[in-house]
Amino acid sequence: MKKLLFITAVLFLFLTAQSQQKLMGFTDANAAKQLDWEKQFDALIKASNQDEWMKFLSSHPHHVGSPQDKANAEYMANLFRSWGYQTEIESYYPLFPTPKTRVLEIVGDKTYKPKLQESAIPGDKTTGQYSEQLPSYNAYSADGDVTAELVFVNRGVPADYEELARMGVDVKGKIVIAKYGGSWRGIKPKVAYEHGAIGCIIYSDPADDGYVQGDVYPEGAFRPKDGVQRGSVMDMPVYPGDPLTPDAGATKDAKRLDRKDAITIMKIPVLPISYADAQPLLQLLKGQVVPPSWRGGLPVTYHVGPSVEKVHLKLEFNWDLKQLYNVIAKMPGSELPDEWVIRGNHHDGWVNGAGDPLSGMVAELEEARAISELVKKGYKPKRTIVFCAWDGEEPALLGSTEWAEDHQQELKQKAVVYINSDGNGRGFVYAEGSHTFEPFFNEIANDVTDPQTHVTIKERRYAHSIVSADAANRNKLLGNKNIKLGALGAGSDYSSFLQHLGIASMDIGFGGEDPGGEYHSIYDSYDLFTKFKDPGFEYGVALSKTAGRITMRLAGADILPINFNSFYKTVNGYLDEVRTLLENTRSQTETDNKMIKEKLFVLAHDPTKTYVPPAIKGLVPFLNFSDLENAMVQLRDASAEFEKLYDKATQLSADKENQLNDILYKAERSLINPDGLPRRSWYKHEIYAPGYYTGYGVKTLPGIREAIEQRNWKEAQDNIEIVAKIIKAYTDRVNAAVALLK
Amino acid sequence: MKKLLFITAVLFLFLTAQSQQKLMGFTDANAAKQLDWEKQFDALIKASNQDEWMKFLSSHPHHVGSPQDKANAEYMANLFRSWGYQTEIESYYPLFPTPKTRVLEIVGDKTYKPKLQESAIPGDKTTGQYSEQLPSYNAYSADGDVTAELVFVNRGVPADYEELARMGVDVKGKIVIAKYGGSWRGIKPKVAYEHGAIGCIIYSDPADDGYVQGDVYPEGAFRPKDGVQRGSVMDMPVYPGDPLTPDAGATKDAKRLDRKDAITIMKIPVLPISYADAQPLLQLLKGQVVPPSWRGGLPVTYHVGPSVEKVHLKLEFNWDLKQLYNVIAKMPGSELPDEWVIRGNHHDGWVNGAGDPLSGMVAELEEARAISELVKKGYKPKRTIVFCAWDGEEPALLGSTEWAEDHQQELKQKAVVYINSDGNGRGFVYAEGSHTFEPFFNEIANDVTDPQTHVTIKERRYAHSIVSADAANRNKLLGNKNIKLGALGAGSDYSSFLQHLGIASMDIGFGGEDPGGEYHSIYDSYDLFTKFKDPGFEYGVALSKTAGRITMRLAGADILPINFNSFYKTVNGYLDEVRTLLENTRSQTETDNKMIKEKLFVLAHDPTKTYVPPAIKGLVPFLNFSDLENAMVQLRDASAEFEKLYDKATQLSADKENQLNDILYKAERSLINPDGLPRRSWYKHEIYAPGYYTGYGVKTLPGIREAIEQRNWKEAQDNIEIVAKIIKAYTDRVNAAVALLK
Repeated sequence: MKKLLFITAVLFLFLTAQSQQKLMGFTDANAAKQLDWEKQFDALIKASNQDEWMKFLSSHPHHVGSPQDKANAEYMANLFRSWGYQTEIESYYPLFPTPKTRVLEIVGDKTYKPKLQESAIPGDKTTGQYSEQLPSYNAYSADGDVTAELVFVNRGVPADYEELARMGVDVKGKIVIAKYGGSWRGIKPKVAYEHGAIGCIIYSDPADDGYVQGDVYPEGAFRPKDGVQRGSVMDMPVYPGDPLTPDAGATKDAKRLDRKDAITIMKIPVLPISYADAQPLLQLLKGQVVPPSWRGGLPVTYHVGPSVEKVHLKLEFNWDLKQLYNVIAKMPGSELPDEWVIRGNHHDGWVNGAGDPLSGMVAELEEARAISELVKKGYKPKRTIVFCAWDGEEPALLGSTEWAEDHQQELKQKAVVYINSDGNGRGFVYAEGSHTFEPFFNEIANDVTDPQTHVTIKERRYAHSIVSADAANRNKLLGNKNIKLGALGAGSDYSSFLQHLGIASMDIGFGGEDPGGEYHSIYDSYDLFTKFKDPGFEYGVALSKTAGRITMRLAGADILPINFNSFYKTVNGYLDEVRTLLENTRSQTETDNKMIKEKLFVLAHDPTKTYVPPAIKGLVPFLNFSDLENAMVQLRDASAEFEKLYDKATQLSADKENQLNDILYKAERSLINPDGLPRRSWYKHEIYAPGYYTGYGVKTLPGIREAIEQRNWKEAQDNIEIVAKIIKAYTDRVNAAVALLK
Repeated sequence: MKKLLFITAVLFLFLTAQSQQKLMGFTDANAAKQLDWEKQFDALIKASNQDEWMKFLSSHPHHVGSPQDKANAEYMANLFRSWGYQTEIESYYPLFPTPKTRVLEIVGDKTYKPKLQESAIPGDKTTGQYSEQLPSYNAYSADGDVTAELVFVNRGVPADYEELARMGVDVKGKIVIAKYGGSWRGIKPKVAYEHGAIGCIIYSDPADDGYVQGDVYPEGAFRPKDGVQRGSVMDMPVYPGDPLTPDAGATKDAKRLDRKDAITIMKIPVLPISYADAQPLLQLLKGQVVPPSWRGGLPVTYHVGPSVEKVHLKLEFNWDLKQLYNVIAKMPGSELPDEWVIRGNHHDGWVNGAGDPLSGMVAELEEARAISELVKKGYKPKRTIVFCAWDGEEPALLGSTEWAEDHQQELKQKAVVYINSDGNGRGFVYAEGSHTFEPFFNEIANDVTDPQTHVTIKERRYAHSIVSADAANRNKLLGNKNIKLGALGAGSDYSSFLQHLGIASMDIGFGGEDPGGEYHSIYDSYDLFTKFKDPGFEYGVALSKTAGRITMRLAGADILPINFNSFYKTVNGYLDEVRTLLENTRSQTETDNKMIKEKLFVLAHDPTKTYVPPAIKGLVPFLNFSDLENAMVQLRDASAEFEKLYDKATQLSADKENQLNDILYKAERSLINPDGLPRRSWYKHEIYAPGYYTGYGVKTLPGIREAIEQRNWKEAQDNIEIVAKIIKAYTDRVNAAVALLK
């Protein structure tokens, strides 16, 4: 009987402890209040609102400069106002080219008639709005009129040109045709130009997002034969935003570069086409059959070329300034109005943009509405919440970049965090972001339920990560439920906040069970989205609950839920990676050189096919990592100390609490190098950057990593020292936080 | 001056040593003579003969039972006789079905008209011989008339059915359609039948040997849209050869099984078709989209099915006995006439069979001619050389199997080695075989020059092996030039010799720069072969020099060039593999069971698609390998001892030399288990067998490995003991050889 009593008592304590959930950075009392508001918030989120708003916002093409783009901004501004937000539409005036002439033809060929036009789908209400659609094109392509032989360059990344060199194929003076995918699209013409090509065609291969992957629209969500991926080819890895106003807001009277001096505008004409239009071009190609990994899904034998027949590509654009409409809606903080929690999503689309970006935009709107309802019931966020609906993301992150550049002084002072979303769909939660937020994000993911399986989104993502791992690795991964944040590269509106200003950022969403090929085409419609991507907006609701919860919890925390240890561990992992990269480059170089000297490449190659062996490469020196390694040890110890003391933070005086919060959110600023990265000073964050030759693909420790990749040993050594300094400055901030807590 | 003298002296000794090449198993004097004969042999080999013979032999379809099949045998017998060989045509009379009725249709469909007929290629001299060609079919398919829904089963191997079960798809009562490749073709209907399917269609997907791989005939060598791969679907992993006379020669008056009792005849109707004929069938399929690894290269979205429409398949065959013509040509040995070095290749083709088998056959003919020229000049091989040209290999290794079964007593006594070749083409030497011959084969490969690069075929193969390795592994492999012999599975005429009788065997050829899709179709013509596979018969010449050299050196060796150490090392590697397989199966099972219990597979799966989680599996026990491990230690020591003493062997008395040779070549017989492998007693070799569920694919230590794969732990343990006994018996033979040398 006694034993049973004891067990009961333990059980009681356990249940009490359970019901008293701890929250990072909250006193127990405030945590309980916060959780209660979050519960009410969840109850307010309605799928039907998201549905209604998406239907309106996607009813017509709403690209930059279109009537619907402006109408949508006004519609959303009115919603925010009606919910009690201090709302403004902030306009900027960047350069935004649109097509005037698009000619693509095989010279002398009478049968090749590229449509350069996507076909309407019967039963889809918006795909037939031809007169309102932007023609398919790549924004910031050069004007040009070129005629030349065609060469197939696979994905058009540097490694592909090395492979072509092995086959004795040169693109100098040629037009290249590249498959979409494998890099951000702007890399393709950039690298083609660097290799001497005079024009670039990019097409969507059915192996990537057409019939090879699944049924095409309207049977499924994959790309039909006429579908074309629009998109920007601006050289955003150098700087995003208006090419004429780097580092400044493109206000009406801003000082502008001459267009010819804007280095981010592509140097050669570039045109995206469909796979139906691409097939006759691919069939022109002679020369060697492509390597197996280059093959696409069209029923032809892919050759590298060149073609015998010439191709004529002529493009002309209207180089106009267009007005952007950013919607900025503020809910001032009750205690810390000068600490801003910024939540954003863009609203412009390439065409009707239901999935991209409206699926994320309507989730954000619903978060804002629900918070406004809570406010009516007495909810008072400590910090200011800023909801943003960006315009012009598609061409070049225009709206967010110009706004961030324009407001940079205020943002550096006030911005605690920027929380981004973009397209959203059915599936698993994903999250990228500043690694100081990793434990916090895991706390959030534990509190949101997956609509399909009714386990937490963290549990479902865990199941996914185990099942999608190689069978041999699964056992190692079992039990580790921590969601590792991905590093932020580029591709959506967090870029300026994180990489230009050093504002800790997150990008979140759901996906993985919403594949398709509608991206940046007329098929990204309300009808396709609601049929295939997120029927019933279940994951729109899940995104609202996740991003809204992140926003509210950051806005309400007594002490910001920052964990330096996660940051340390992650960066230390990156350091391991770059050291390994250097080692691998060294042994790879030695092996390659040995093989070249022994003529093994030549002996192994089919002598009936052209083969140009690679040249002997210079040996890879050992670099001195010690300054950085020593700095990392300091950071490790400071971070561990801070983590140990963190629970005490909520017991600080209000004044010290404020001091600590200030240190915490500004710590990320110390990762900014005012001189920026080599050859692209706009990018100033020393830990995360988009790859110079990968685009979207993130490069962590970019200064070091890309120097090694480019075999620039001097630059690699210099950047080790730069990062060491940055890490020391960061560690000083951590130590300042520790000092406050001691 | 003194130093220079010393260096000169060393150099002189070095050069002398170089010029006095050592040969395994030869005295120095005999090695010099042998090498001189080989040099003369090389000089005699003519491409033009191979060309002329191929032109004649491939001039008409020459499948079993065709007039040209018989004419070819007589033509070759006359050649052998004209060169002085004791030549006979030995006939057998196996069951060989040919098609009477072939119906394939979509029920009620008026537009689906499968051609079931390959189209002639303008400019190719033989593809238009329609009336002489066997229609496309799978030999030893059952007669049948079935109508059912269609299901796509990928390659049709057991793992594919597990995947289908996960998708909730059952093939019971259905007709399956499978892609060629991924297993021997006979496995596909066998596994389909085991899962309840009532019919099987096999098609050649363009991703495997059609336009995806390269240009199709006549632009290139790949399979055109109407091309069909003929081939046997007899259950040869149970036993090859005549289904009616297992273990006995199918002589005229042999005792025959009733056809209904012949277990190797397929139980359901099976038809091979082209990709043009397959496409409308694949487009019928509904249900889930296939997993990415199942996709083919047709421009459709591949679904698993089932179809809604039914498919009708009706097949009837003429079940006749057909006469085979094996050509057997002997050159009696001057000293050891009862030790036979057997060299064989088959001569029957599915149609005109230029590449398969004539490219190997004409190389063998030229070896025989050249040797006969040497004999005229005084060359006297010690051992008897037996040249064989097998009939009926294509349907089921009929000719070689019936001959080996018929002559088994004599062969067990006399056969030293069986050296096989089959189709041959441009590229790199490959070799599979009994591992006692590995050092010997390397010695040979060092003495043959690659016709394209003029380095040795060993050097070229080495370059290929390094370059085709993963970049990360190359450094490890650099410098190791040893050609590791592959293990012999099935797929050509060595099967009876090695796996039924325990005669050490080798299978050699060249390839890798001769890809194509003409295999078993009308396109395997003289015109295609001489244009794409081995223009100028350069590699036919290289094959003659390699296989002829092997034959001559084995026929001439004082002591057979056997190395037990290579065998030991190889088998010890297999033992490591099966232990690792058991360990991996154990940890995999534990991981899977954990994941099933935690519902991870279900949680990770898209809930809108059917998913049947796998069942919990029984745990994997630890097995007792100690007997086998102890036996391997004994073998290791005996083999090392023999290797140490081997150089002394040529100093033995003639009598002891003979005793030693007898032990050496019969050692392989002790690897034979008279009871055979579980469920297929015809296969008696305990080290090498074709896989029961992979067909061509070899399974080493088959009794142990397949029991583990089938999770039959009792059988695995039993087979460990069996192999231990076999290894002990083998070690006794090695020790007997050692004793002779001591």
